[in-house]
Amino acid sequence: MEFFEVVERRCSVRDYEDKGVNDELIKIILNAGIKAPSAGNIQPWRFIIVKNQEIKNKLAKAAYGQSFIREAPVNIVVCADEFASSSRYGERGRTLYCIQDTAAAIENILLAVTALNLGACWVGAFKENEVRYILDLPSNIRPVAIIPIGYPKKTAYRTSRYPLQKVTYLDIYGNPLSW
Amino acid sequence: MEFFEVVERRCSVRDYEDKGVNDELIKIILNAGIKAPSAGNIQPWRFIIVKNQEIKNKLAKAAYGQSFIREAPVNIVVCADEFASSSRYGERGRTLYCIQDTAAAIENILLAVTALNLGACWVGAFKENEVRYILDLPSNIRPVAIIPIGYPKKTAYRTSRYPLQKVTYLDIYGNPLSW
Repeated sequence: MEFFEVVERRCSVRDYEDKGVNDELIKIILNAGIKAPSAGNIQPWRFIIVKNQEIKNKLAKAAYGQSFIREAPVNIVVCADEFASSSRYGERGRTLYCIQDTAAAIENILLAVTALNLGACWVGAFKENEVRYILDLPSNIRPVAIIPIGYPKKTAYRTSRYPLQKVTYLDIYGNPLSW
Repeated sequence: MEFFEVVERRCSVRDYEDKGVNDELIKIILNAGIKAPSAGNIQPWRFIIVKNQEIKNKLAKAAYGQSFIREAPVNIVVCADEFASSSRYGERGRTLYCIQDTAAAIENILLAVTALNLGACWVGAFKENEVRYILDLPSNIRPVAIIPIGYPKKTAYRTSRYPLQKVTYLDIYGNPLSW
């Protein structure tokens, strides 16, 4: 699919058909994820591919009952290796770079999902400690997103955006652009 | 350009031809940026388009002398409106969601740059307070990246990636996938 079409079509899909997603597709999606840039090419992303129903149920509960997590055939839990980033970049690595690097990987994943005519949703609201416990994460591995993936059941709702003029400035803050 | 080709081709470009980038292209790039998802669709991204040479010089200095910032015809300084995110989501909004949301927008920007045969680089290393001062940012607006953009002078070096097996697990951390 053409790049700008993928960008336009990506949206949050929370209803999935009762149909599994082939491992080969998951691999294509993850391979797009790891092509994201990262500070110092540290690649602090770690991915847990969750297909086990019991674990999906627990994740949905840890995410305040967001039921589409347990309904999706597969979830990718994206984690940040805080130690990998902080050992080179200190506190800025831990609190900024490894969050940004994993977010860039997540965005690649969401776009790849769209390009493959699958649907996904970026879930950020969950109890981190519960997810850590469910997935047996070491202390340096922080869960930063849960991404349920499946075949979309219906056309999802596309959220609107502020016009560009509202969020852009020329040269210094507050100086409007003419577009 | 086809989506997966864009993902493969994206890399950090730090050498630019002495040639301006048309405003229409900048607009296409930013329009891709704002199509990124954000927590609660808050859209906490703010963009300062820097073309002024004196300001570019100052930004390069604030970024520890990374000279390609002043050499690029245009820089997009991406900022996060911490107040926008924290007013709905508290500390998790300020320290996680608005960093993730802006990083997703940045990744869309970098991919759009690539799709248009331009080149860019994600600069994360800079003195935030200096950038705040240079761009006259209010206290709630945090600069999170500087993105110099231009026509690539030469083929850039593509960094390698760890194989997927090294960063993926099945169902719980530590449980290897068979791929």
